Parts: sequence; structure tokens; C-alpha cells
Amino acid sequence: MEDLMRLQAYLRDYAAERDWDQFHSPKNLVMALSVEASELVECFQWLTEEESRNLSDEQLSAVGDEIADIQIYLVRLADKLGVNIPDAVAQKTKKNEAKYPAEKVRGSSKKYTEY
Amino acid sequence: MEDLMRLQAYLRDYAAERDWDQFHSPKNLVMALSVEASELVECFQWLTEEESRNLSDEQLSAVGDEIADIQIYLVRLADKLGVNIPDAVAQKTKKNEAKYPAEKVRGSSKKYTEY
Amino acid sequence: MEDLMRLQAYLRDYAAERDWDQFHSPKNLVMALSVEASELVECFQWLTEEESRNLSDEQLSAVGDEIADIQIYLVRLADKLGVNIPDAVAQKTKKNEAKYPAEKVRGSSKKYTEY
Amino acid sequence: MEDLMRLQAYLRDYAAERDWDQFHSPKNLVMALSVEASELVECFQWLTEEESRNLSDEQLSAVGDEIADIQIYLVRLADKLGVNIPDAVAQKTKKNEAKYPAEKVRGSSKKYTEY
Repeated sequence: MEDLMRLQAYLRDYAAERDWDQFHSPKNLVMALSVEASELVECFQWLTEEESRNLSDEQLSAVGDEIADIQIYLVRLADKLGVNIPDAVAQKTKKNEAKYPAEKVRGSSKKYTEY
Repeated sequence: MEDLMRLQAYLRDYAAERDWDQFHSPKNLVMALSVEASELVECFQWLTEEESRNLSDEQLSAVGDEIADIQIYLVRLADKLGVNIPDAVAQKTKKNEAKYPAEKVRGSSKKYTEY
Repeated sequence: MEDLMRLQAYLRDYAAERDWDQFHSPKNLVMALSVEASELVECFQWLTEEESRNLSDEQLSAVGDEIADIQIYLVRLADKLGVNIPDAVAQKTKKNEAKYPAEKVRGSSKKYTEY
Repeated sequence: MEDLMRLQAYLRDYAAERDWDQFHSPKNLVMALSVEASELVECFQWLTEEESRNLSDEQLSAVGDEIADIQIYLVRLADKLGVNIPDAVAQKTKKNEAKYPAEKVRGSSKKYTEY
């Protein structure tokens, strides 16, 4: 399952076998994706930043499951919308490089801390 | 940029060149990831499900950028935590198959509509 | 508990009795608030808009609990920040009225559909 | 605007004057509410916990606007669903007290740090 395309194909079959395509409108998938992102936030909400860098094995396993869920819904959504994730990432990183040139960003204030 | 590992390496360099590692605690990255997920929700909040299946080119371009941002932060977070995304996905899909067996799910109520 | 000020006082005592002030930094409370908002989203993610207008008693009870959780964390956060919610709402509604004048909005496209 | 009932009535008129009721299904309002919660998260994502306790006037003003937006959508949603917020809060706080008795919580681990 190393490849996003293979995951995409897997998820198509998975939904088809369960008759779930009917629920998978982009609007609904986006909601589900945001819920998974919040389940990840829940793992970290009462931790200090330092604690968040030093998770126990149990915490890390739970966090890994949430990361997987986000990746799964992201691939499923992109498939439904016809978005190619690597292409979208290539375009966005190019925009980001233009928006936040390294030589201007270094030492600047926090509000520029974005990808 | 087709490969998650290449994206991971790119994002490491990108952060290092901007001196941003100091801000990238897992706690902070998780917050940023959830914010990106909500920017995606914002694109869809007033659309009907039907409209969400038929985005204009302009809408699709904006949505593609948000999908890219989520992928970017997800890879960055996984890198900081030492989580291998393909492995995490493989483990999670196995759990999901056990939890939602296709033969039991077909025709069942909506509450089981999860990956 | 009809009044936000009474709720605020109640939540102060509640946290003090449990020794939870140490966890209630604004950053953490904001994360908790967003998690509660997503638990509300989870109640609606697979429903059609029509179904969302016709919840069962059981669904409505679950939704009521999530609405309460959001109100609770919002009051707790505002207290920690020294924000007076009614004042903040009064200022924001004034801004919104200037931004979205009724006579200009009627019949306009969806993108203006905001408070 | 000190009272939730007055805010509710105001928001009804506000939506009616703009012909926005058509967009305000509970499903859509929940999405909008979660987006506002994330805009609040965005204000805090790169701050340390300590910094989050010491906002500048400018930061506090932006945060106040987001708190107001959340309160506004929460009241609007509750109105559409027929949920009485003070009643819902009263019920939920009673449940929480039973779930997290003060005498058991004091000194316990972080995972119980919830309202």
C-alpha cells in the first residue's frame, strides 16, 4: 500500500463492496476528513509541546491510526473529485516557495510560519 | 513530487532553510493540519451534495490547493513523529476490514459508513 | 444556568475543584473547543441536508450534548482570555451588518452567505 | 445583545432579510461552525501556551471576533434544531459531574481533563 494510486484503487473496491458510494459525496467526505483531523487534535490537546515530541508507544499507535484515517479520506476525496494529489502538491509547493522565499523568511516573525 | 518520501525530504529542507523547525512541534503541526482541513470544509459548506460533485474549474483549483496543504502537513507531521504513512495505512485498513466486513455492511444503516 | 456569567462562575469552580487550571491554557482550550465542534460535525456527516432537518429524538439528544460542550468550552476560553462574549458578539454583528448589507445581499450568490 | 434569546431573534431577522434561510440547514450550519472554530485555532497554532496566555491587543481583538462567530453560529444552529442552549448545558454539566467526580479527579492523569 505504498503508493497513493494503489490506495485509491483499494478504497474504490472497499466502498463498492459495502455499497457506500451513495454516501461519498465530496461534501460528506470533506466532513469526514475534518472529523478525522480533529481526532488527531484530540490526541494532543492536553499535552505540552514537549510531551507531543515524546509520545509513548501507546500514544504513537493511536496517532498512527489517525494519520492513516486522514490519508485514507484524502485519497478517497481526491479520487471522487478527479484531483491528482502529487500534481496538486507540486503546484502548491511552487506557490509556497514564491510566497515565502527562504532568504526573506529567515528570522522573520511567526506569522509567516506556513507551508 | 510523486512520492511521499520525496515530499518528506523536500519539506525537511524547506523548513530548515526558513528556520521553521522551532515551530514544528507535533502539537503545533496537528493544529495547522486541522486548520487546513477546515479550509477545505469552507469550500463546501454552502454547497449541496449535488453541487459538491460538480465543481467549477475555479472551485476545483481552490480545493486542489487545500488537498495539497493537508497532504503536506500530514507528511511533515508523520516525519516529525517517525510514523511511516504507508505502514500506518496498511495497519488501519486491516483493522477496518475486520471492523466492517463487506458481507455484513451491505444494506446496513448509515452509522457504519466509515473507512 | 441560563446566564453566561453564571456558567462562567460554575466552570471556574468546576476546574478549581479538579485542579484542572494547569491544563487550561487558551491554546489548549481552543484545541478542545475545535474537537467538540468536530464531534458535532460527526453527528451530521453522513446525513442529507433534509435528514439534518429531521433528527430523531436520540440524534437530537446527542447533538444537544455537543452543543452544550461547545458552549461550555467557549465560555471557559472567553473567561481565561478576559473576553466578554456579549460585547464581542455585539461588535461582530455590527461589522457583519456593514459587510453584508441586506439590500445588497438579497438574491446575490452563495459566497456571501455568512454571518 | 446580552441574552442568547435576543441573539437568536436577531439572527432570525438577519437571515430572513438576506434570504439566507435556504442555506441554513443544520448540516451546513454545523460545517460553518466548525470552520469558525478552526479560524480560532489558526490564531493560536504557532503560539506557545505561555504566549497564548498573553495576547496583544491586536491578537485579542481577532480572537474576540472568532469567539463571537462561534457564539453566533451556535445560537443559530440551536434555533434551527429547537435546542435550548441553557437546558442543554444544564443537562451536560450534570452528566459531567457524575463522570468526573472532583474527589476522584484531583491528582489523576491528564486523560481525564475534560468538562
